[in-house]
Amino acid sequence: MLQVSQRGQDIPASPFRKMTPFADAAKRRGLTVHHLNIGQPDIETPPAVMAAVQQVDIRVLEYSPSAGHLSYRLKLADYYQRAGINVTANDLLITTGGSEAILFALMCCLNPGDELIVPEPFYGNYTAFAVAAGITLVPVTSYIEDGFALPPLTDFEQVITPRTRAIMICNPNNPTGYVYSRAELTGVLELCRKHDLFLLSDEAYREFCYDAPYISALHLPDADQHVVLLDTISKRYSACGARIGAFVTKNKDLQEAALRFAQMRVSPPGLAQLLGEAATDLPDSYFDLTKAEYQARRDLLVARLRQMPGVFCPTPGGAFYVLCHLPVDDTDRFAQWLLEKFEHNGETLMVSPAAGFYATPGLGQQQIRLAYVVNQTSINRAMDCLALALQQYPGRIEPQAQAQDVQKAQAHA
Amino acid sequence: MLQVSQRGQDIPASPFRKMTPFADAAKRRGLTVHHLNIGQPDIETPPAVMAAVQQVDIRVLEYSPSAGHLSYRLKLADYYQRAGINVTANDLLITTGGSEAILFALMCCLNPGDELIVPEPFYGNYTAFAVAAGITLVPVTSYIEDGFALPPLTDFEQVITPRTRAIMICNPNNPTGYVYSRAELTGVLELCRKHDLFLLSDEAYREFCYDAPYISALHLPDADQHVVLLDTISKRYSACGARIGAFVTKNKDLQEAALRFAQMRVSPPGLAQLLGEAATDLPDSYFDLTKAEYQARRDLLVARLRQMPGVFCPTPGGAFYVLCHLPVDDTDRFAQWLLEKFEHNGETLMVSPAAGFYATPGLGQQQIRLAYVVNQTSINRAMDCLALALQQYPGRIEPQAQAQDVQKAQAHA
Repeated sequence: MLQVSQRGQDIPASPFRKMTPFADAAKRRGLTVHHLNIGQPDIETPPAVMAAVQQVDIRVLEYSPSAGHLSYRLKLADYYQRAGINVTANDLLITTGGSEAILFALMCCLNPGDELIVPEPFYGNYTAFAVAAGITLVPVTSYIEDGFALPPLTDFEQVITPRTRAIMICNPNNPTGYVYSRAELTGVLELCRKHDLFLLSDEAYREFCYDAPYISALHLPDADQHVVLLDTISKRYSACGARIGAFVTKNKDLQEAALRFAQMRVSPPGLAQLLGEAATDLPDSYFDLTKAEYQARRDLLVARLRQMPGVFCPTPGGAFYVLCHLPVDDTDRFAQWLLEKFEHNGETLMVSPAAGFYATPGLGQQQIRLAYVVNQTSINRAMDCLALALQQYPGRIEPQAQAQDVQKAQAHA
Repeated sequence: MLQVSQRGQDIPASPFRKMTPFADAAKRRGLTVHHLNIGQPDIETPPAVMAAVQQVDIRVLEYSPSAGHLSYRLKLADYYQRAGINVTANDLLITTGGSEAILFALMCCLNPGDELIVPEPFYGNYTAFAVAAGITLVPVTSYIEDGFALPPLTDFEQVITPRTRAIMICNPNNPTGYVYSRAELTGVLELCRKHDLFLLSDEAYREFCYDAPYISALHLPDADQHVVLLDTISKRYSACGARIGAFVTKNKDLQEAALRFAQMRVSPPGLAQLLGEAATDLPDSYFDLTKAEYQARRDLLVARLRQMPGVFCPTPGGAFYVLCHLPVDDTDRFAQWLLEKFEHNGETLMVSPAAGFYATPGLGQQQIRLAYVVNQTSINRAMDCLALALQQYPGRIEPQAQAQDVQKAQAHA
């Protein structure tokens, strides 16, 4: 019988998007929906960067080299040098978004059936990439009570097998906002050195660290052969639609293998490369305003959440996400209820239930991710809605039961 | 030991690009190199289409829906309807070039270890996609003496095994320029129906058929559940750098699986989708001039080739390629010699040796692909070079030996 392949059946639908039909229905009923569910920044794409595409004179929109335009790769190497990351144009290739960099890394570092260790919760699409690459994603749980710090290295060692080939981290983290310390990163790298593993470091939110300086995996000594830095301009310059990223490693064998995967698809998007190249010319001060705005939003959001009884919320040090615990039975149900049954002055909010960020079944059912990609007025109104919703929601768990629940979670940890 | 994955080692370098260093060196020596080696059209990208990107007012360059902008999908369905292909917006999703459509199709139709039958010679990158998808590419040879017509269906049946899941064709064909007849397509589809196989039909060159009307796999009756049409705007509108393609099927299970792969990488390129959407508004007459120019070039190129002793060249009915037989020992060596040792009035030409288009070792060693993507003046000058080069090349095979060689090839067929 004609049927879809097993991997075509196994690949999960985006956990970010399954609530969309309910949001659309709410809007059709006339509600204002505050979108705190997806990491789509509201910050303006820098006009100077858009202008690079809009003012260029192109007679024939040709293929670019498979690794990307050399002029862009040279300038991108400069950008990394300014960030203290010692790479040249030969150490990087331009990808179609960070997504393609992730796929190339999995393809080049792991064979089908090999294992990749990832701290959970993690970016939900990693699950889909694992299916596409035919590898096994092995989670190591980080806990909200620890602010989602890196799990103890012993937890990693316990799950290392002869099939383990790499550890993947996201730093600053999506969905937790946690920023790994130098000590944590050094610990992971040492583990990789001890067990001959690659360290795949997804650093899409590099510029958005609010409390401590940012450390890249490529800042560490003796990291060169182990580290692949996975990058994207999507969040940095509010250019998610461009689909421009980078695969960065000083490991020459890996870089050569990635180039052959890049040749397979001939070239990355041409117009968007112009945009990426222009972005490298932005002054470092470009990030000051954006960062200040995100930090103010974070502080507001965390403060508002902490005023709600039964809500537990660590302070995320980076990115633009908060992962918090709610006093509800199940955040999938709660998120849908917010869109279907709740309103406050004609408004409601859309959130990401956190179960989709965990590989371990059952985890994250009382957590949601909020992206502070809307302005402070919207954040305040969304939090007015959330506070009221938590009082009205039929599946609310009372603070007494709640406390026991958190204790159980801690005992499990 | 830290090492690149087996698939990272297996994936081949692009057969199109290995001659590039020799071409670069020739240019540094001051030679003019006529590029007949790569399918990069010289036709102007339609200014109205570029304008769609350059004049749009975008504040935030956001993610698009994973399937592509609905407005584009609706217009693209109209484009297909005008071409007699009965699909709606729900039957298609926008991909990052035709390349991504190919990868999604292999992922959705085959599991690792499954087999895909492809007539050879074929688009060289199919080999790399097979490695990335972990599948086995099984060639069925088409012969230059037959003008690269579809091999007999019995040749396909002989290689069908329990692991065979799909047949992939490229129509009009790259690299041969052959255009499959309705009878050939019907035969392949019947085979697919008989053996429960998918039919993956790469139709990038649809508009460029010079001698007979174009037949799509989706023009055939009872094709809906079997056919996936793989498409791209690259050649059609001379927009290779845009990286916009489409995955088209009326098989709902396949379309849903492809959407989940599309969600994995969030969205296709945003700016380039504007360009693709604008291209659907071009009048049908847009292709008249382009097609007339390509046809004139084809006729010139074939006529010039046939004047050269020992050169055998079928008349390709479509696309913008000619695959011809040369009286030389090995076209890899000859192509390199053209760039390193030959010149005529300060000029030479770059060609694609055909061995990279075959999966069967040893085939194609006396064939080259020429892309008629340069104007008629350049074609004439390139053919002046080729004619002279064939007289001077030390590895030339004399017509007598040559005739035996062709006879041997025919006997083998």
